[in-house]
This record gives sequence, C-alpha cells and structure tokens, in this order.
Amino acid sequence: MMKVIKYPKRETWQNLCQRAQIERKTLTSSVADILETVKLKGDRALLDFTEKFDGVALDSLVVQPEEITEAKTKVSTELKEAIVLAKNNIERFHKTQQSNEKKVETIEGVVCWRKSVAIEKVGLYIPGGSAPLFSTILMLAIPARIAGCKEIVLCTPPNAAGSIAPEILFTANLVGVTKIVKVGGAQAIAAMAYGTTSVPRVYKILGPGNQYVTKAKELVQIDGVAIDMPAGPSEVLVLADETAVPEFVAADLLSQAEHGPDSQVILVGTTAEILEKTLRELEKQLAALPRKTIASKALDNSRAILVESLTEGIAFSNEYAPEHLILASENASTVMDAIVNAGSVFLGNYSCESAGDYASGTNHTLPTNGFAKNFSGVSLDSFVKKITFQELTKKGIQNIGPAIELMAAAEGLDAHKNAVTLRLNQVENV
Amino acid sequence: MMKVIKYPKRETWQNLCQRAQIERKTLTSSVADILETVKLKGDRALLDFTEKFDGVALDSLVVQPEEITEAKTKVSTELKEAIVLAKNNIERFHKTQQSNEKKVETIEGVVCWRKSVAIEKVGLYIPGGSAPLFSTILMLAIPARIAGCKEIVLCTPPNAAGSIAPEILFTANLVGVTKIVKVGGAQAIAAMAYGTTSVPRVYKILGPGNQYVTKAKELVQIDGVAIDMPAGPSEVLVLADETAVPEFVAADLLSQAEHGPDSQVILVGTTAEILEKTLRELEKQLAALPRKTIASKALDNSRAILVESLTEGIAFSNEYAPEHLILASENASTVMDAIVNAGSVFLGNYSCESAGDYASGTNHTLPTNGFAKNFSGVSLDSFVKKITFQELTKKGIQNIGPAIELMAAAEGLDAHKNAVTLRLNQVENV
Repeated sequence: MMKVIKYPKRETWQNLCQRAQIERKTLTSSVADILETVKLKGDRALLDFTEKFDGVALDSLVVQPEEITEAKTKVSTELKEAIVLAKNNIERFHKTQQSNEKKVETIEGVVCWRKSVAIEKVGLYIPGGSAPLFSTILMLAIPARIAGCKEIVLCTPPNAAGSIAPEILFTANLVGVTKIVKVGGAQAIAAMAYGTTSVPRVYKILGPGNQYVTKAKELVQIDGVAIDMPAGPSEVLVLADETAVPEFVAADLLSQAEHGPDSQVILVGTTAEILEKTLRELEKQLAALPRKTIASKALDNSRAILVESLTEGIAFSNEYAPEHLILASENASTVMDAIVNAGSVFLGNYSCESAGDYASGTNHTLPTNGFAKNFSGVSLDSFVKKITFQELTKKGIQNIGPAIELMAAAEGLDAHKNAVTLRLNQVENV
Repeated sequence: MMKVIKYPKRETWQNLCQRAQIERKTLTSSVADILETVKLKGDRALLDFTEKFDGVALDSLVVQPEEITEAKTKVSTELKEAIVLAKNNIERFHKTQQSNEKKVETIEGVVCWRKSVAIEKVGLYIPGGSAPLFSTILMLAIPARIAGCKEIVLCTPPNAAGSIAPEILFTANLVGVTKIVKVGGAQAIAAMAYGTTSVPRVYKILGPGNQYVTKAKELVQIDGVAIDMPAGPSEVLVLADETAVPEFVAADLLSQAEHGPDSQVILVGTTAEILEKTLRELEKQLAALPRKTIASKALDNSRAILVESLTEGIAFSNEYAPEHLILASENASTVMDAIVNAGSVFLGNYSCESAGDYASGTNHTLPTNGFAKNFSGVSLDSFVKKITFQELTKKGIQNIGPAIELMAAAEGLDAHKNAVTLRLNQVENV
C-alpha cells in the first residue's frame, strides 16, 4: 500500500519526486541489429521477425479491405457509437488548435509570417497485447487528419492467427488511417523509418510501445526521424482537499495503478482526514479489481503526502511535473493558475482522468517521467511544421539593410553583407 | 564551381537532393566521458576542461557585472544601434506567436483548453571561434524572454585571455540572459544538462555547435533534456526565373557558401540564361571575397539545376526541403502556396537570406539536412509547453460517461471504467 509522508520539508521534495528508476536493459545492439536487417531486407525481414516474435507466418503484411469490412461486423453497435462520440469530441478540441497567425510588418517594408504545413507522412505505432488500445488511434490519427498529413501509416503486431483486433481496424478505418500494417516491435519502427516495399517511409513516428519500440524510436531519431516524445511509465498526481470525494479519488488513483506495476501514483492531501478516508476507500476498491495484482504493485511504489494547503500542493506538483494532475477540489479554479509543470490537468470532482483518456476531447499522449517540464503532449502541433515567410520591398531593405551590413561585418561574414550592399546600391541608383 | 544539371528526370531528384554525407566521427565515448566527468566533478571539471581545450586557467566561470559594463564601452554605437533595431524586429515577430486559444465545450458540460507555459529554465549555447555569433543570441534569448523563461543561461567558450567577445556580452545583457558562463564544448552541454555549482541545470538546450557539442546534445537528450533540433550544415536553395537579378542571386548563394566548406548551395533556374548569368556573376563575386577558399569548396559540392517552370522548381524544392528557400522572382506569390517543405522562405528580389539571418524579425535557427520535412525552426513554441485543462460538470460526466465505460471495458481497464461508474451513480442518486 501507499507510503504516507506527513508535511515533508521542501529539501526532501526533490527526493519524493524521484520516479522509480526504469531498468534500462542494454537493448541497443539487439535493436540496432533489427533496424539494420529491416534496412537491408525490407519486407522479407518484417515477415521473418513477425514469424519469430509474434509466432505467425503471414502471407501479406498490409491489412486488406475485406479484413476491415469483416471487423466492422464484429464490433458492437454500442462500442461503435461510443468511439464515434469520442472521435467527435477529440476532433472539436483539436480543431481549435489550428493556428491562424497574422502577417506582421516588423518595420516598414518588411512583412513576416508563419504558415502551418502538415508533415506529409507520419507513422503511428499501436502495441499489441491482451487488450486492443484503439483509443490511442483516436488520439494520434485524428490530429494527423486535421493537420492534413497525406500518409498516415499504422503498424501494430498481429495475433497468433495473423489478424488484428476488430476494434483497432474499425477505429483506424473510421479516422482515416491510410495504411494498416501487421508488424510490431522494433521491426515496425524500422519499417516506418526507412521504408520497405509494403511500408512507406515516414518523417515522424508517434505512439507508445515496449522497451524495444522505445529503443528503436530513440535510435531512428538519431537518423533524423522525428518522434513524439521520450517514453516513460504513466503517472497521476491527485491533489485533494476537504471538498474532495474520497471514493472518487481512490478510483482515480486505481485507474492509474492498473496500467502496470511501474505506474506512478501520488496522492497529495491538505488534511489528514482526506488522506485516511481515501486510503481506506483504496483498499476497498482494490479488493474488487480484476487487475488487483498489478495495481497493488504500483501502489507499493507510491506515496501519499500531507501538505499545508492547496497552494503548497501545487508547488509540490510543479516539482513533480505529473503527466496527469487531478485537482480533486471544489476550489480548483482558485489555484490552477499556479500550475507550471503538468501534462494534462483535471479540475474538480467530476473531471476524472478516464475522461481525458477516452472521450472529453483532450489528447491522452502526454509527457511522463518529469518531461512535463520541457515537453507538451501530442496535439495538432505534433503533425505540422511552421514555415516562416518574409517579403521585403525596396523600402524594407533600405530600412534594415544598413543594420545587417554592420552586424554581418562584425560577425566576419562579408558575403552576407555583400548581398545587402548590392541591393542597397541598386535601390539608390534607380 | 557548381555542377550544372539540365532538366533532370523526376527519378533522379532524390539523388540530387542528397546532402554530402556528414563524416560522423565516433565521438560517442570521448563525449560520454566528458559528460560523466562533469556530472561527478562539477565546476572543477569545467575549469579543467577549459584549461585543456581553450588554453586558459579561469578564476571564475561566471561572467561578472564589471565585465559586462566594460563590454558595453567596447562595442561601437553604430553596431549597438544595429543590434537594437534587429532586436525590435525579432521581438515584434515573435510576439505575434503568442497563442491565445479559447476554451471549447466539446459536448455540454465538458470544457477543454490549452495554456502555454514557459519552460522554466533554458540553456543557450553560442560557439566561440574567430567571429562572435551574437546574432544567434538574439534569435534564442528574445523568444525565451517573451515566453517567460525564468532562467536563461548562456554558455560560450572564453578566448585565451579568459574573456568573452564584447558583442556577445552586450547582446546577452541587452536581451535579458540571466547568467553567462565561460565554458564551451561538450562540457558546457553537460553543465547545463546536469547542473554544477556555477551552472544551473536546465530543461532544454538550444544553439549551434561543433561535432562535440552536437554529440553531447544528442546524448543528454536520451536523459530527457530537450534540445532544439538535430544539427546539420547550413543550406540554401535559390529558385530563380527570368525576373531574378543574377547579381543578387549570386550574392545570396555566396552568403550561404561562406559559412563553411560543408555548406549546401542549390541554384534552380527556369531558363538557361538565368543560370549562366548567375554562374558568371558568382565567379566574379567569389574572386573578391575574403572567405573565398571556404566558399569555393562549398560551391564544388553544389548544383545548378535547370527546370521547366517555377512550379517544377517548387516541386524539386519540396523534395530537397531546404533550410532557406529564396524565390528570386517577381512572381513568387503565384507559387508560394505550393511550398510544403522549407525552413524559411524569402520572397522576391529584395528578400535576401541575410535579412532573415539578422534583422527582419524571423528566426535564423532553422532545420537543415532535410529536417524541414519534419521540424520547424526555433520560435516562441520552442520555449513553452502547452498544458491541457478540462473541467466536467455533472452534466458533462453524464454525457460522456457511458461512452467511457464501454471503451474502458473494451480495453480491459476496469478501474478506468469504475472511476466513471462511481461518479455516474452519485450523480443519479442526487
């Protein structure tokens, strides 16, 4: 169960904010081998690795239209409707992120602006495993479509029968993924980074994965392929005061803890009573949970911390920089402006993390492991680059030309200066 | 001199777009050693490396106020005024990048929004060498200040006398750098990534540098420190038609070529005449250039390409994805919407690259080496992260709760479902 720490001194905060050390296996050489093999042998390598790691000999890597048609019949109407509701909300939220920056005349005759242009080809990775993570497809493919990415490739490992979960196929088709490939692991990342006959080379790869996938993303990044963000176990910090509902807080902590034994769960309370009540609820709810063993391991590494006030709680949270921050308080709005480091913030007693994980509209691909200090979650921004434009008139070059000449000369770059001098001479001679 | 290629077939474009292979020295272990030493020994290591690599035994790493006061007296009034003019334009342009996204109610009772919050601590690296690159300080520190970064640390190597160029000190002080440290190379990157007594640990490191600096940035990135973008030699593609001014085009090509022998210079022309005239001008101007040897080496690796039209030229440029794209044409505006991959675009005969390098207002820290396909240049965005917020009312959880329950159950995450069920029960029982 969670370790309780009462009124820790500021000096100890940094220590309390430590994540469990991720055991970094030295996968580099084995993953590098996989990348190299895919680079050399293309589809052949993908088929071989799939046989080796997923235990299935495929005829074709690419999902065929018939498979999608069949998948649609296998997903219940209720679940389809739920996915469509989530899709609509996610679309609405991500469409507000379309930027429309104005041209600015920085000085007479010098007009500058930026334009958002989609990254042409992106690759999404969706892990396999016992449950199909179709919600992550919504979170990655919807902004990719809104951005205008032309190719949206999705790689996910097949099961032992050589097929993909119908929920994955239904969702990917619904949101406009252009190609679904039955390949997982480091070999999937390699295929998208370097291209094979079946898998187009993409410019950016997004999505969660195991240690092999993470290492592969890290390695292809050195080759210039962009990735979404560094990976780490999922985490939540719940800041609760006396207006919180212990039953809800406990449920939110457990919904994080059930992700995996390495999940990070932090409860920060402003009264001893809310901590105690929540911990009692936690034990009760935990006992009834199917993933009890996983959740209870995660809780063993977790902490319940008593602080003086919501304000102090926010200060602690800023130091921790949680992926998810739940302000379980009716007074959330009075302190939310003080939040500096967090991935996604949930305000009040009815904003549970599950809402953001699935259907409220915000993205669930968020910075973990303290990276909320320097990274944003996935958004429309993740699928565009912003190109700057500028246009100078004769008046413009006259206004800034002399300054450029001086600065270029001081930096020892005469050709830079000359490009201006020639233009100034011509303008003055006309 | 540049190699001329007439009407190349599309199949050959990819080949023509190849950058010269950067010789990747196997610096990993020596740079990793430097990082480790700085991590262990802190300031002591910085002083030792500075003595070893920069040839000077410093008393103190941090620039003192007296040194800044003195520097101010050493920069000419004209240059100071030029720097201030550039600063004003850069500020104006980067201020337009402040986003002000509205709250959106994705469905009744569910309100979501994003808030831009400054990365609290950033580190800027400015290389040493023969000429002081003070313009890069403007490009990095101005958006950092506008974003609201609290600590802006600048590291730059001292000269053999133990001092920093006055232009660097003047500019850094002008734009609000909070600490200037006399340290260069991989040891500077290590200091900013891990922190020492004199150098605060930062969350993101930006700025150009040699191979050691680049490798160090790559390695600390694996530890979760964010960096601006992958590095590569600077490059320009000039697309010229019959309305271009050969003299200007040649000057722009040379202003790129003088950066270094590995600079990339591509001239794309729509008529044989514009290519010939430009190449003739190029030889003439080259002869008069102080950095002639460097520029002419760069030109040897460069290409002049004849295409059918501006439209075809843009298509080629999109394949190349240049850091800088100059549309040397009076018809630039007719084709600019077709630009998909470029770092910064200069429209018409008076928009020289030097303008954007120094004073028009746009940023000069841009993606090279084809990375304009998946990265943006530095902007205000580089200094903030965007935190998402959401607030659900009872009505909100009623509207999306059932969908979340279905989706969570389908993903096998019962605690996620339970966090919603408990709230729905409570709302319905009231």
